[in-house]
Amino acid sequence: MSPVSSSPQYHFLEAHYQKIARFEHFNALGDWDQATMMPMGGSQGRAAAMAELASHIHELKTHPMLEDAIHSALGEPLSMMQKANLAEMQHQYLQASVIPKELVEAKTRIGYQCENAWREQRINNDWQGFKPNLEAVIAITREEAHIRAKALNVSPYDALLQRFESGTSSTQLAQTFDKMKLWLPSLIDDARTRQSSHTITALDGHYDIGAQETLGRDVMNTLGFDFNQGRLDSSSHPFCGGIPGDIRLTTRYQSHDFTSALMGIIHETGHARYEQGLPLEWRGQPAGAARSMGIYGPIRFARHSILILRRVHCTHIFGLFMRLPLALMDMCFYFPYHPYGFFRAYAEKRF
Amino acid sequence: MSPVSSSPQYHFLEAHYQKIARFEHFNALGDWDQATMMPMGGSQGRAAAMAELASHIHELKTHPMLEDAIHSALGEPLSMMQKANLAEMQHQYLQASVIPKELVEAKTRIGYQCENAWREQRINNDWQGFKPNLEAVIAITREEAHIRAKALNVSPYDALLQRFESGTSSTQLAQTFDKMKLWLPSLIDDARTRQSSHTITALDGHYDIGAQETLGRDVMNTLGFDFNQGRLDSSSHPFCGGIPGDIRLTTRYQSHDFTSALMGIIHETGHARYEQGLPLEWRGQPAGAARSMGIYGPIRFARHSILILRRVHCTHIFGLFMRLPLALMDMCFYFPYHPYGFFRAYAEKRF
Repeated sequence: MSPVSSSPQYHFLEAHYQKIARFEHFNALGDWDQATMMPMGGSQGRAAAMAELASHIHELKTHPMLEDAIHSALGEPLSMMQKANLAEMQHQYLQASVIPKELVEAKTRIGYQCENAWREQRINNDWQGFKPNLEAVIAITREEAHIRAKALNVSPYDALLQRFESGTSSTQLAQTFDKMKLWLPSLIDDARTRQSSHTITALDGHYDIGAQETLGRDVMNTLGFDFNQGRLDSSSHPFCGGIPGDIRLTTRYQSHDFTSALMGIIHETGHARYEQGLPLEWRGQPAGAARSMGIYGPIRFARHSILILRRVHCTHIFGLFMRLPLALMDMCFYFPYHPYGFFRAYAEKRF
Repeated sequence: MSPVSSSPQYHFLEAHYQKIARFEHFNALGDWDQATMMPMGGSQGRAAAMAELASHIHELKTHPMLEDAIHSALGEPLSMMQKANLAEMQHQYLQASVIPKELVEAKTRIGYQCENAWREQRINNDWQGFKPNLEAVIAITREEAHIRAKALNVSPYDALLQRFESGTSSTQLAQTFDKMKLWLPSLIDDARTRQSSHTITALDGHYDIGAQETLGRDVMNTLGFDFNQGRLDSSSHPFCGGIPGDIRLTTRYQSHDFTSALMGIIHETGHARYEQGLPLEWRGQPAGAARSMGIYGPIRFARHSILILRRVHCTHIFGLFMRLPLALMDMCFYFPYHPYGFFRAYAEKRF
């Protein structure tokens, strides 16, 4: 059907990583579902299925043919993007191949057991029940860190850092934070001084959950979230997950405090818009996925900041509030005149 | 860890079918999600992922080691249930091994494309748009039927019948229906005569969707559905799916006719209760799954019939109606005094 390729090994790899992405599709779906929809009776079966799937994905990521294929593809004629894609494949192969399949499977199972139990424990504030599960998670993560550290010849912390921010070391991070220490405290002081001239109105009303959700969806639309390619649901802790073309974010609602759900939605919409903006033609390839927290983080942070710091956006969102039921109306009288104070109150409450 | 088994091949098979069940977990989840939760933007990615998964499950079901392992296990010491499980494995292996992987993959992809497009086409009554997709589904099903027929040395119809009712032939079905023809028409006539003495009240109110859902959940509780091990959602067409320990059923709501959603729920709860009653210790093994429509069907039909034909159940359900909001109250004045007429009206409307 297709003409003879001059880059056969690269195209073999492309098909292989496309296959991995299709299995990762079910990983994302299973993860989202267990946090939003799954009844408790499904926990055991889901944990076992997720561990089986993780093990299979790990097998695909460490396929014996990959090392040679990557090596051969490096000598094939490739475009700049194909080269970048191949470099990502190399990175992924290295990261996967140092870890045994059994550890991947056990880590998945232990993680799900901990999280599923936490849903109930969180409601009951049951720290003693949570503790042994958390210890198991920390123990297996330490085991992983030591295996990675040994294989990659770095410190255990740096070995885990590679999972989120490849190419960075704790030495570099320390330098970055040292620089921040020079200007951040005075900036915070300035902001507090400026904000203190605003009167803070306490938030202590009853905010209808349905109205909060309507507000959240309106804010998501304002921020450009495409509901044809995603959803909003609720879960024990807000997150952004899902699948390319179908990005799913969540928040959690409290009837006495609408800011918790709203800020969760704004934050997660930042993640979601990043995901929805990834290039369509590279979907399913390593170069088409989020690169690292170092690139990912600032983009969502910038969007988040633009929204919360600029008075014009606050005023626009006030427009949305005005269309909502009476249950949220007392907030409207508070919000537009004190955008800074609003978020200062929010920040002081949370941090 | 475990003592040396005297049935090593059987235990290899048990572990292998457990693995298959864990991948089928994602098949059930992906299927449920695309019918209930997935935004349209997810269609293409889901169809590709489901086809990849179906192909992988087919590979596992036709694993080169299975034939020898099954043969060897037949000579191992096994309990009655283990023998039944092994017989199911033999049946599944035979059914899977006659079909090429490419056909399984293509059939899954074509089926999902048809169904996803149908969701929109159904709303717009777009038969012309639906036709080519349906033709593709029929064409690939015919191809499958002919491959199965040749391999199993039966007619194409009987080859497909094995998928739903193994061990039955169209000759047997014809005999069964011939017997039914002797008594069914007169039974229907008798029922109609008896029902005609009841006055039928037309259903033409406005029935709040939320109230319909509350009613549905109450009826599900009455029928013994365990919400800790399942869910109720809505979809374009009612179905019962999900995973052992997490059975999910759906219905569809119409604001001018509450019977459609209610009857969907009653029917699907029949399926769900069957699934929720499957033996826990055989979960993930072929012998622990629904055997065939011939065993499955009558059980759910019996439950369905008990509910809809016995006046005492109708009266009990009336008790549930009484707890509902006003939107459903006009129905309450109609329902308890005319249980037969209620369902006659329903039947005449639908069939």
